[in-house]
Amino acid sequence: MTAPRQLAEPSDPLQGFGIDHLPYGIFADSGPGSADGADVPRVGVRYGDRVLDTPAALPRWRELLLQPTLNALLAAGPDTWAAVRADVTEVLASTARTEPAGAQPDSPLLLPLSQVTLRMPFEVADYVDFYASEHHATNLGRLFRPDSAPLLPNWKHLPIGYHGRAGTVVPSGTPIRRPRGQSKAPDADAPSFGPSRRLDIEAEIGFVVGVGSEQGTSVPATDLAEHVFGVCLVNDWSARDLQPWEQPPLGPFLAKSFATSISAWITPLAALAAARVPAPARTVPVLEYLADGGDWGLDIAIEVDLNGTVVSRPPFAGMYWTAAQMMAHLTINGASLRTGDLFASGTVSGPTPDTVGSFIELSQGGRHPITLADGATRTFLQDGDTVTLTATAPSTGGGTLRLGEVTGTVLPSASR
Amino acid sequence: MTAPRQLAEPSDPLQGFGIDHLPYGIFADSGPGSADGADVPRVGVRYGDRVLDTPAALPRWRELLLQPTLNALLAAGPDTWAAVRADVTEVLASTARTEPAGAQPDSPLLLPLSQVTLRMPFEVADYVDFYASEHHATNLGRLFRPDSAPLLPNWKHLPIGYHGRAGTVVPSGTPIRRPRGQSKAPDADAPSFGPSRRLDIEAEIGFVVGVGSEQGTSVPATDLAEHVFGVCLVNDWSARDLQPWEQPPLGPFLAKSFATSISAWITPLAALAAARVPAPARTVPVLEYLADGGDWGLDIAIEVDLNGTVVSRPPFAGMYWTAAQMMAHLTINGASLRTGDLFASGTVSGPTPDTVGSFIELSQGGRHPITLADGATRTFLQDGDTVTLTATAPSTGGGTLRLGEVTGTVLPSASR
Repeated sequence: MTAPRQLAEPSDPLQGFGIDHLPYGIFADSGPGSADGADVPRVGVRYGDRVLDTPAALPRWRELLLQPTLNALLAAGPDTWAAVRADVTEVLASTARTEPAGAQPDSPLLLPLSQVTLRMPFEVADYVDFYASEHHATNLGRLFRPDSAPLLPNWKHLPIGYHGRAGTVVPSGTPIRRPRGQSKAPDADAPSFGPSRRLDIEAEIGFVVGVGSEQGTSVPATDLAEHVFGVCLVNDWSARDLQPWEQPPLGPFLAKSFATSISAWITPLAALAAARVPAPARTVPVLEYLADGGDWGLDIAIEVDLNGTVVSRPPFAGMYWTAAQMMAHLTINGASLRTGDLFASGTVSGPTPDTVGSFIELSQGGRHPITLADGATRTFLQDGDTVTLTATAPSTGGGTLRLGEVTGTVLPSASR
Repeated sequence: MTAPRQLAEPSDPLQGFGIDHLPYGIFADSGPGSADGADVPRVGVRYGDRVLDTPAALPRWRELLLQPTLNALLAAGPDTWAAVRADVTEVLASTARTEPAGAQPDSPLLLPLSQVTLRMPFEVADYVDFYASEHHATNLGRLFRPDSAPLLPNWKHLPIGYHGRAGTVVPSGTPIRRPRGQSKAPDADAPSFGPSRRLDIEAEIGFVVGVGSEQGTSVPATDLAEHVFGVCLVNDWSARDLQPWEQPPLGPFLAKSFATSISAWITPLAALAAARVPAPARTVPVLEYLADGGDWGLDIAIEVDLNGTVVSRPPFAGMYWTAAQMMAHLTINGASLRTGDLFASGTVSGPTPDTVGSFIELSQGGRHPITLADGATRTFLQDGDTVTLTATAPSTGGGTLRLGEVTGTVLPSASR
């Protein structure tokens, strides 16, 4: 197991949600003392273990922030994103100045996380899932196509991707019902039907589109920050027994469409300025429209936790294709972007067995169970299992920021 | 070329849009004499070459019908759909009683089609494209995988499908810009980039979901009419040179995502009662959840017109998988339906060369050009080409109804 990134100040009282982070989400009051009408969903900014009630704190932006989703803010564009972020920073900095150093500021505008409920942060327009980790694509190629080259000939020429189901993207904390479906054993004559027996995760980073584009035009890789508002953690739940049977020739469908979980907090791209790193060197020349955007690697360190045991630490910095290249590819045919589009990286897997982002890789296709801290073993997920993804990145202040977690617990399959 | 279906009364003054059809769309006034505020988009019902201004004609349903999309009506459910349809029928029948037999009724509530502009009829939630024609799947299997069995082993066990891009679904009449992208010749070392040289269509029937379902549950095939509001014509534009290079292993992506055209008129399922036919006999037993729904075949006869020449007449009645089976499969894993979901049949192709629903089939992979009425030849589409899909079906009145057409003209590729 590689060493986890240490928070720059182990005593960081803001736990990676300090003044240089400030992710956005949608919250409503849930405490017993909520005032009438206070349960209106609205935009919040996380600061430590508090949530800034932004419509109340920033009257200038009230119309944009008194909204049940982030979509209005997303659509407003980079100048507005910067202006709102500057104002949030100012409000929090002035609040903090009245408090002892390191202490959490107290204010009626800062609600304890424990007293709010977090909602789905934005309405997803189209959801695209890429396949941008060379290690993951190689590992799955070995498992699914053992008799041929693990990486297909197209993989280093374009970011492979496909459309997922936007309507089943759910926020962190939503229970995940085990899917049912068809699978076929290699030696069986016909498929059988039942609950998935190879329920898996995919640890990913998602990119949230703010500003759309016009159908019939392309968006260059250099324009990432003009269109993408920020990032979230993504768990793209997968049924590995349904997938190989249904996949040829048009790709994954029901094996992926039952649920995709995202973090409740969206970290603005601006907060990740210190996390930018070069993507790995190209080992095959790419076409011109994919030549830019290699400077959009992001040093985000993910942790995968199953029932309290960290089972993997996938490093996003090593992803072969960057978000800028994904966006350029997605639109090179003239497909438009829309506010609320979500495109995810695909499973983040590093080069070593303890840095892979799925259980099919951790268990080497189900052949080698992993052992948890309590002595339990797993290949794929059992009912009642809870998977939590967390992630950290260098912050502009020299410390470490922590993305909002994404967690989900597996429920038994439906009976009908 | 098979003979086209004759309209039951060749002199039908309502041209397949009579009292037993009544499809829904969204219109706004466009004439020079439009009153102030009359260009508000709202629900219209087509009757002959007129459009019933439904919020004005049906005050009882004004809230549901004075809407910029059909989504509110879609969400209202089957009882409301039936009640609104009954009221529309009553309004039109009483208007018609005051007119000579066969003449088009005149009324301030019935606006000439030429004086309105039609809009996108509904906001698409998720778009799924199936692959339900055995003839099409066999034809494409032969072209794309000449060295193996044309139909893959899974094809008769489940309706193969994949998610498309909802954000690029456009209404009939929208020009289609030729996509650019990567393709690779079999003998080339690396891919090349440029405008697609194999731009194609796919003639399909689309099913529009009204009533959603809860994530984690499945919808049985027998419940089709509880969830699906109606049908439209679909042209799923495709770039055949981009497709084989990008497709392995996760399916079509940019080859399909640049544009999908749908008819401006949505024909209610209720209007297709007389078109229901049994699906073809199963040649392989299916799992229980797909056993029902075989009575949802639909005798819809499609015509594909290129620049004024009818080049094919695909018969929807022969589709192996029905909409009911597609819906049951789509949700068997617990994926939810949402109001505005669109699922399409995949290319409709019949058993003979003049009944296939794509140019890659018509031209046998580009090897055999077809000849148009003016002597021009085509394999794939050229800039400036106009493709129009029309379709007819038996109506409950004993005549023939005509689905709204879907048409689009190809524009040259973008320069950047």
